[in-house]
Amino acid sequence: MERDLKHLISQMTLEEKAGMCSGLDFWRLKGVERLGIPSIMVTDGPHGLRKQKEGADHVGLFNSVPATCFPSAAGVASSWDRELIEMMGRALGEECQAEDVAVLLGPGANIKRSPLCGRNFEYFSEDPYLSSEMAAHHIRGVQSQGVGTSLKHFAANNEEHRRMTSDSVVDERTLREIYLASFEGAVKKSQPWTVMCSYNKVNGSFASENGYLLTEILKDEWGHEGFVVSDWGAVNERAAGLAAGLELEMPTSRGTGDRKIAEAVRAGKLSEEKLDRAVERLLRIIFKAVDHKIQDAAYDAEAHHQLARVVARESMVLLKNEGKLLPLAKEGSIAVIGALAAAPRYQGGGSSHVNPTRLEDIREEIVMAAGSAANVFYAGGYELDNDATNAALVEEAVRAASEANVAVLFAGLPDRYESEGYDRTHLRLPANQIELIGAVAEAQPNLVVVLSNGSPVEMPWIGSAKAVLEAYLGGQALGGAIADLLFGDANPCGKLAETFPQRLEDNPSYLYYFGEGDRVEYREGVFVGYRYYDKKKVEPLFPFGHGLSYTSFAYSELTFAKQAIRDDETVDVHVKVKNTGDRAGKEIVQLYVREAASKVIRPDKELKGFAKVELQPGEQKTVTFTLGKRSFAYYDVDRKDWRVDTGAFDILIGRSSQDIAISAAIRVEATANNRMKVTRNSTVGDLLADPATQPVITQILKDQNPFGTLGDTGDAAEMMEAMMRYLPLRALIAFSGGAMSEGQLEAMISRLNGANA
Amino acid sequence: MERDLKHLISQMTLEEKAGMCSGLDFWRLKGVERLGIPSIMVTDGPHGLRKQKEGADHVGLFNSVPATCFPSAAGVASSWDRELIEMMGRALGEECQAEDVAVLLGPGANIKRSPLCGRNFEYFSEDPYLSSEMAAHHIRGVQSQGVGTSLKHFAANNEEHRRMTSDSVVDERTLREIYLASFEGAVKKSQPWTVMCSYNKVNGSFASENGYLLTEILKDEWGHEGFVVSDWGAVNERAAGLAAGLELEMPTSRGTGDRKIAEAVRAGKLSEEKLDRAVERLLRIIFKAVDHKIQDAAYDAEAHHQLARVVARESMVLLKNEGKLLPLAKEGSIAVIGALAAAPRYQGGGSSHVNPTRLEDIREEIVMAAGSAANVFYAGGYELDNDATNAALVEEAVRAASEANVAVLFAGLPDRYESEGYDRTHLRLPANQIELIGAVAEAQPNLVVVLSNGSPVEMPWIGSAKAVLEAYLGGQALGGAIADLLFGDANPCGKLAETFPQRLEDNPSYLYYFGEGDRVEYREGVFVGYRYYDKKKVEPLFPFGHGLSYTSFAYSELTFAKQAIRDDETVDVHVKVKNTGDRAGKEIVQLYVREAASKVIRPDKELKGFAKVELQPGEQKTVTFTLGKRSFAYYDVDRKDWRVDTGAFDILIGRSSQDIAISAAIRVEATANNRMKVTRNSTVGDLLADPATQPVITQILKDQNPFGTLGDTGDAAEMMEAMMRYLPLRALIAFSGGAMSEGQLEAMISRLNGANA
Repeated sequence: MERDLKHLISQMTLEEKAGMCSGLDFWRLKGVERLGIPSIMVTDGPHGLRKQKEGADHVGLFNSVPATCFPSAAGVASSWDRELIEMMGRALGEECQAEDVAVLLGPGANIKRSPLCGRNFEYFSEDPYLSSEMAAHHIRGVQSQGVGTSLKHFAANNEEHRRMTSDSVVDERTLREIYLASFEGAVKKSQPWTVMCSYNKVNGSFASENGYLLTEILKDEWGHEGFVVSDWGAVNERAAGLAAGLELEMPTSRGTGDRKIAEAVRAGKLSEEKLDRAVERLLRIIFKAVDHKIQDAAYDAEAHHQLARVVARESMVLLKNEGKLLPLAKEGSIAVIGALAAAPRYQGGGSSHVNPTRLEDIREEIVMAAGSAANVFYAGGYELDNDATNAALVEEAVRAASEANVAVLFAGLPDRYESEGYDRTHLRLPANQIELIGAVAEAQPNLVVVLSNGSPVEMPWIGSAKAVLEAYLGGQALGGAIADLLFGDANPCGKLAETFPQRLEDNPSYLYYFGEGDRVEYREGVFVGYRYYDKKKVEPLFPFGHGLSYTSFAYSELTFAKQAIRDDETVDVHVKVKNTGDRAGKEIVQLYVREAASKVIRPDKELKGFAKVELQPGEQKTVTFTLGKRSFAYYDVDRKDWRVDTGAFDILIGRSSQDIAISAAIRVEATANNRMKVTRNSTVGDLLADPATQPVITQILKDQNPFGTLGDTGDAAEMMEAMMRYLPLRALIAFSGGAMSEGQLEAMISRLNGANA
Repeated sequence: MERDLKHLISQMTLEEKAGMCSGLDFWRLKGVERLGIPSIMVTDGPHGLRKQKEGADHVGLFNSVPATCFPSAAGVASSWDRELIEMMGRALGEECQAEDVAVLLGPGANIKRSPLCGRNFEYFSEDPYLSSEMAAHHIRGVQSQGVGTSLKHFAANNEEHRRMTSDSVVDERTLREIYLASFEGAVKKSQPWTVMCSYNKVNGSFASENGYLLTEILKDEWGHEGFVVSDWGAVNERAAGLAAGLELEMPTSRGTGDRKIAEAVRAGKLSEEKLDRAVERLLRIIFKAVDHKIQDAAYDAEAHHQLARVVARESMVLLKNEGKLLPLAKEGSIAVIGALAAAPRYQGGGSSHVNPTRLEDIREEIVMAAGSAANVFYAGGYELDNDATNAALVEEAVRAASEANVAVLFAGLPDRYESEGYDRTHLRLPANQIELIGAVAEAQPNLVVVLSNGSPVEMPWIGSAKAVLEAYLGGQALGGAIADLLFGDANPCGKLAETFPQRLEDNPSYLYYFGEGDRVEYREGVFVGYRYYDKKKVEPLFPFGHGLSYTSFAYSELTFAKQAIRDDETVDVHVKVKNTGDRAGKEIVQLYVREAASKVIRPDKELKGFAKVELQPGEQKTVTFTLGKRSFAYYDVDRKDWRVDTGAFDILIGRSSQDIAISAAIRVEATANNRMKVTRNSTVGDLLADPATQPVITQILKDQNPFGTLGDTGDAAEMMEAMMRYLPLRALIAFSGGAMSEGQLEAMISRLNGANA
């Protein structure tokens, strides 16, 4: 329905307009009854609805209505499946309609800078391309149901430690290429109704009052049309926030924020026009929600549960499978060990904590999947609420394992280890679990470890387990999904969306992660995740993109539609993938780009495409990717734009970031004028290397001949050559033995700039 | 002789004064004959005089008079011997007097940020304390002879790549604690007559016109009384340089620089008073040189050669000695292998290249030392001027090795691999040497490798050599020194002044070292050398401070004069060291300090003291160190001062940075008022942690009770606790359910600041 929002706004008092800019309570926006503006509701969270019951606590955390709990983002990202997450989004949207929720607060697109971050389970990846693609399709799915999303937490909110006051100090190129890129793709592709600004500061200014982020980049550059909402409690100075582009403060500040906005307008410190524009953005989304509201909506809880099981299956990653221990035979005796099998960890703590419609029992699902020819028995092995080893439990588990043909040990991080609100300080499993794994492995060499955790753990015990299945936080249907995968009723196809390091110290942010007081420097720059492990040649435990299958895939015939392109063109890349094993499976084909020789310091390679392809045994398909300027570009800080330099780029097709199956080079021509300006500090070497200036500088050197009288300098020849290469033009005065004057230098620079025009 | 310099300057014309501020030619300053101001001469370099003969080339590099070539700084630093380098300095001063040189251009105190730097051989260490101590005593030695020094290259000149235009972007704390600290100690302790500014920019401004470095820090803070001279050709804009504190431009700019200074004064852009002060600094040093000139000075070349041999012996580092292969018996047959034994690399290339008074022949020295009962034969093994393997030479070497009882293989970097002027791009030995080591090791398990190189190399072959002696660039008496050590006529006592990494990628600056164009970011910050390897737990090939002996040492009884000190006091630390072996030897006792819990991100430990002690078999001595504020402090960027926070510090006494023999904790009390200012963004956790604010905030929380109604929140208890800890005061408004107003918040902040006054 078309409405004249400007007219509507013109009827509002200053107080009413200011009032629109903060919440009515914890979860609802204000309406204006006399003008027919309704109050809409927003609610957490990305992998399941967390709508509080009426009259719940005032910090909005407990007593929510039942909803389907899907796997959390760390898992879903491992599916690398755009269609699947979109389907999940649609289901979430349906549940929102049924619960009268206008905007779902998610997805989260923050980059996993360190595995320590307590909220990593809610985020997708260490790679901005993968993260933004997953976020875009999550948003697309939810919004297809007439329900809004809130892309969060914008931006550079990569730790929970001191999250409300910390200042993320990030250089512009890193911000653009890594931390913002993860949001940029999602905003441009899927126009989330709202974007949620984060608690922290970014380069000195709170995200909630950061005009560079909220207005210049988000609204002006990326064209975001919706509104920005504060993370709950993120507002610092309300009027400054509004001026910077923060339309909505949540939760209610009980009039304080509204008053400050009205006062600022009255004092002439904030233009009323800016306030009007904010209200217009709010009204546009409010009425969008109203217009798309489906009366008496309902959803099929069972169908959503089954979808949760599919998502979980596709999200889990088979990390190791020595001697093809998996899939398990549906016979013999199977020891299921570990308290996490009985009390599964299937979602993270904090604002995303869902009250599930039901919860599958892992042990029951295993019994069902194993069938009647198998004998499944259980031993707890450890206590979940503390880290101390319980000798009796270990003994029982060891006995069970030794009496079985195979042991499936459930390990992972208890709730108390990771949550919104605080970070981990180490990457270890609880000590009692580590001890148990060692003890069980001694009794039973056929050991499968199934992990439940939201973020990587160190595995000093990796040599003791023949197979490891990373189940992440698998949602309410994790039990069936795990059983499907263990027995081969489904074929594992997830791949890691993040690097698993050997040890915490290997992480690129390790030295600086917690910062000093409130100052957190992102010194590792663009070298986040595999970009660091690759370039520093630090061997990870499992690399980004890694994941095993019960079948195998072969790659061939990597071809380009064109061998060379201009940077304003796109190019199609094709590669053939074949299932060379004996069962159906899905392969995640990864495309990485490497600049052969770069003017700036770049990662060894960067993910620029991926596709998930399903193949029957013996079947072959051609996968096509389309690459454009951004596939090759870096962010040029001086010009404030994306830039490609003319040159060769390797296109690498991989099973993982470290297992490149096939590669070929393509040439890209820059269309921008990237010529350098010659100054008195331009070096002879740079001028010789540029075809435009090369003839002129060659002639000049011939005339001036600065080191010429030395002739062949024997042992020092390399040094003389280097001295010449690095010589700035102005130093010709000192080194040409008086042959050049300041005036001649200036004339020379003019000549060179002429050559360069 | 006392002179009225101000009166003298008052008699000079503007042109004469400006003229004093640049060289007469390549090596001499200008005089003013009519006023009796003489022209003095300066010349390279730190480990030997490089005075050009009259009429030599105009870039000042070739045809120098003979002088004693001492080991270069990388080696001398490995002696960790203050007295020894001072003795070497005295010898250098004597040679300067004999050659009528007023100022010797050295020593170099730049920090070894990366082993790639082509000029590392001229620098001391990756550690600023060790580097500044060695520089201070070098200066003290030279200047004791009435000859000046030039402490170089000031500052942050840590690569040769694009050295004349590159911009070292270094944060203030890193600059102060690492890069400047290496100069600071030397300036304060030994007052070098001159300081040489480097070619590069530092944080955007050329070192030659960087007022922050040359005036604020060097002259005002550190109290440098001499003058600053430009590195040869380092002047960018002469008048700006003078204004910033650069008194002398070298070499001559044939009037260009003088003219610019005079014009700037006339145009009122540069105050004549500033010029006068510059001239006064120049005259003070010129007349100091004149007053200390010894007529008809001469030196004992043979005595200096013998000193060079002692220095070389103390500078070499025994890296490995499996099965006590060394010292060699003076009997049996010994294969000496490697072209570097015949054409030794004993000094680096560039401005420090000395024409030695003589050069010991390594092979002859080995024959002499081995004595008549031994049979020594030689095989070249490889060509020095290229990297290709010569099969015939290898075959000959393998035959020689297989016929001997032991093989001593001389390997290292040829001249073309490292020099002033350019950096290495990898850390490998030439391929033909690596291949030779492998081939010889197969034929002869008793393999000793002797290395000649100015900076670390990778040793993928380390497993093949039972013993490795790092000889660095050992100067003209290296042959005898090596022979002395190989046969045990001297006991190795050098220890590494730098980390030897397993591989280049492990170096902390690896990702950013060459920078982007002219921008070089020091992103690793204070984590240079062992500070990085320690904290990141990256295992080096050989750690900082490592070096073996033919005897062994035991440590005991670490005691402090006081168990706790204020930060304005000093404390004596004692430790007993005993020679537990059967031959005399010297031990380098290293003292590291670790802050138990720090407010800022600090290295795991830092070198704050060292002593070299000579012990007869069975002898025990007590070594004493004195620690003061700087032993515990970090540089506080906000307050622009050195700061100690009250707390515990571990004092670690080590044989190396990784071999800590004994340690104990001491308490240091801060005397400064380090209280925090409470703001609306102070966190509840910080206020609870500060004894001054703790009672007030506790009472406030009791009154406001922001999350109190939730009671025990079960699984989310950790999150609720973290939310509270990280909560800024201003967020109490949002989270206290309306119980707090903006006015109350302000009153609360006042109360807390009152508590804190």
